[in-house]
Amino acid sequence: MAASVTPIAAYTTDRTFALHRGGKIEQRNKTPLRTRDDLSMAYTPGVARVCEAIHADPEQAFEYTIKRNTVAVVSDGTAVLGLGDIGPAAALPVMEGKAMLFKEFAGVDAFPLCLDTKDPDEIVATVKALAPTFGGINLEDISAPRCFEIEDRLIDELDIPVFHDDQHGTAVVVLAALLNAVKLTGRRMEQLRVLVVGLGAAGVAVTKILRAAGVEHVVGCDSRGAVHTERGDYVDGAMNPVKRWYAEHTNPERRDGAPADVIDGMDLVIGLSGARVLPAEALARMAPDPIVFAMANPNPEVTPEEAAPYVRIMATGRSDYPNQINNVLCFPGIFRGALDVRATRVTEAMKMAAARAIADAVPERELRDDCIVPSVFNRDVAPAVAAAVAEQARAGAV
Amino acid sequence: MAASVTPIAAYTTDRTFALHRGGKIEQRNKTPLRTRDDLSMAYTPGVARVCEAIHADPEQAFEYTIKRNTVAVVSDGTAVLGLGDIGPAAALPVMEGKAMLFKEFAGVDAFPLCLDTKDPDEIVATVKALAPTFGGINLEDISAPRCFEIEDRLIDELDIPVFHDDQHGTAVVVLAALLNAVKLTGRRMEQLRVLVVGLGAAGVAVTKILRAAGVEHVVGCDSRGAVHTERGDYVDGAMNPVKRWYAEHTNPERRDGAPADVIDGMDLVIGLSGARVLPAEALARMAPDPIVFAMANPNPEVTPEEAAPYVRIMATGRSDYPNQINNVLCFPGIFRGALDVRATRVTEAMKMAAARAIADAVPERELRDDCIVPSVFNRDVAPAVAAAVAEQARAGAV
Repeated sequence: MAASVTPIAAYTTDRTFALHRGGKIEQRNKTPLRTRDDLSMAYTPGVARVCEAIHADPEQAFEYTIKRNTVAVVSDGTAVLGLGDIGPAAALPVMEGKAMLFKEFAGVDAFPLCLDTKDPDEIVATVKALAPTFGGINLEDISAPRCFEIEDRLIDELDIPVFHDDQHGTAVVVLAALLNAVKLTGRRMEQLRVLVVGLGAAGVAVTKILRAAGVEHVVGCDSRGAVHTERGDYVDGAMNPVKRWYAEHTNPERRDGAPADVIDGMDLVIGLSGARVLPAEALARMAPDPIVFAMANPNPEVTPEEAAPYVRIMATGRSDYPNQINNVLCFPGIFRGALDVRATRVTEAMKMAAARAIADAVPERELRDDCIVPSVFNRDVAPAVAAAVAEQARAGAV
Repeated sequence: MAASVTPIAAYTTDRTFALHRGGKIEQRNKTPLRTRDDLSMAYTPGVARVCEAIHADPEQAFEYTIKRNTVAVVSDGTAVLGLGDIGPAAALPVMEGKAMLFKEFAGVDAFPLCLDTKDPDEIVATVKALAPTFGGINLEDISAPRCFEIEDRLIDELDIPVFHDDQHGTAVVVLAALLNAVKLTGRRMEQLRVLVVGLGAAGVAVTKILRAAGVEHVVGCDSRGAVHTERGDYVDGAMNPVKRWYAEHTNPERRDGAPADVIDGMDLVIGLSGARVLPAEALARMAPDPIVFAMANPNPEVTPEEAAPYVRIMATGRSDYPNQINNVLCFPGIFRGALDVRATRVTEAMKMAAARAIADAVPERELRDDCIVPSVFNRDVAPAVAAAVAEQARAGAV
């Protein structure tokens, strides 16, 4: 009775498994196919004229096909939730869930594609080959550092937006939460001292967006401790290029050691480690009015209960605590906005616009230490993000 | 006013273009996402248990994801309708239409994927990478002879059914029509003399299924005339491997020349050439009770009006004449049956079973020279085909 894996016989009476049976999304026809007339317009011979129009002017694909409203949710299953490298078949339920969120919150048709390869060259080649059907590519749950190269190459080579949500979705929502936390605590971005714990896809992207927003003082820790240019693996060249960049652009004091060793005087700690790596007592050594975003799921780096004696503003990734920092506040609206104006990429300025729109979705009168981000069920967020992103895309294209 | 291309301004008032605006299919969520409870089952944290169950037993993907009911409609846009190599973007409306037919006639969720590559190695690699999401692969509108190699390699390398509809869908429905035509004219398959005009994907596949059904005498013509082992391109080695096979397995008399030169005494002419290559008068030289399937679309190799004085049973691919030989009679039911029993491939026996089911869908009392195939709107056909295919798959797996 203490088995750690649910016996298969039990799935049939489990609500979550019942909900997943046969998959969570389906394809629906938007027009009827009941008569010969229906068939001759939606299929041969009528469809041939639409094909010819697109052949003559490929831009017409955005008018007369699903490309206009369709995003691929692409994963290789190497970094799924907290489960790690579980492979493409096991990743599919997550990608279906992501597709549901796209539809529910922004009316975007998304289709999950779990790839049976981990090779970056093959992933890039596959996504490039698939691009004609899609108006955008959402990369998902691809492990670092491969995710950086894969995204960079696809952004360069495709003329539709490519967005690795684990990086940029997280970064946008963290920045949104921080904009409100800074407002509440009377700080300025330029003064903030930030400790980032966990330097995977999200940790690196969060650091970059904070720098773009004016944050100057960041120290980042990976599983070997704080990254800096005197650390052994930097000196001997073993460090990967993304982390080398990190060493060169953060931690000028070369603070060294575990998160608890480098936390002194920090205004903000952001946990993106996937592990419980923050002893609560260490939080006592942060600056006054400390802010902690402990986003490991399901077990935060430090729980709100543990942190309560030490911290002023606390956020997590969980729905059962206040201040849930959840990517669903970002990605549906980002893609909605990008598709609406046929943006060819998601620029830094578009991400910043999204973060401000999310922060502004908490009305001034509701802004409190335990309400720095809107609810994931606030239906106004995605349209507001979409509008801000579209406006910024138009402005940037001038 | 005599422009051959519709001006773009006119699209907005054109019913067919209006129907295509924004695409013909969409993604739909099968369960609601209104509460935290909904979200925690369809997405994190609940989804993690489903992922773990699939990771532990990959077969569970067929139970708890869209794989169970989802087919990819894959094209490279090289042989689209009669339009030829119009590329992947312009092919998308056809693939969307195909997806609609899958859903409408068999409840199969299909997703169109138009690939931005014509290289067989890249197409094979791409489809292999995509396979985890899908329960089957429908290849579509890929030009010959590339389509043969691509399909053969994918069948070998994947453990889900791969079916090039232009080949096998056409072959199955032609055989179905022929089973009834043979019955009406009191012939036996073994006695038939058959001329196949056009040796692309469909012509080759039709020849193979006819041989499997017992037909012994076939002559095939490509654009250079009848194929045989004394033709110049066979002798000098320029002929592609598929056509070399054709030369070696048909036309033992080595009849030579254009279709009209080799038609004498034929019982059946099958046009799959995409062109008007059959002078009607030549039909006078066929055997008594001649049968003609002229399937080029939209302009048959010979029209029913032209053929009427010479032919007993006439079929085309068009909906505005009797005896429409249309793949939609086959592919929805084939995939429905294969998915229902999780067949790993579509065997020759399953195709034969499908052809018999289609032929049998015309009740004995309705069988006439101008009613040898069921209507494409006969809703009983796909379930009958699915049942026959599933039964054959089960029998074959024993």
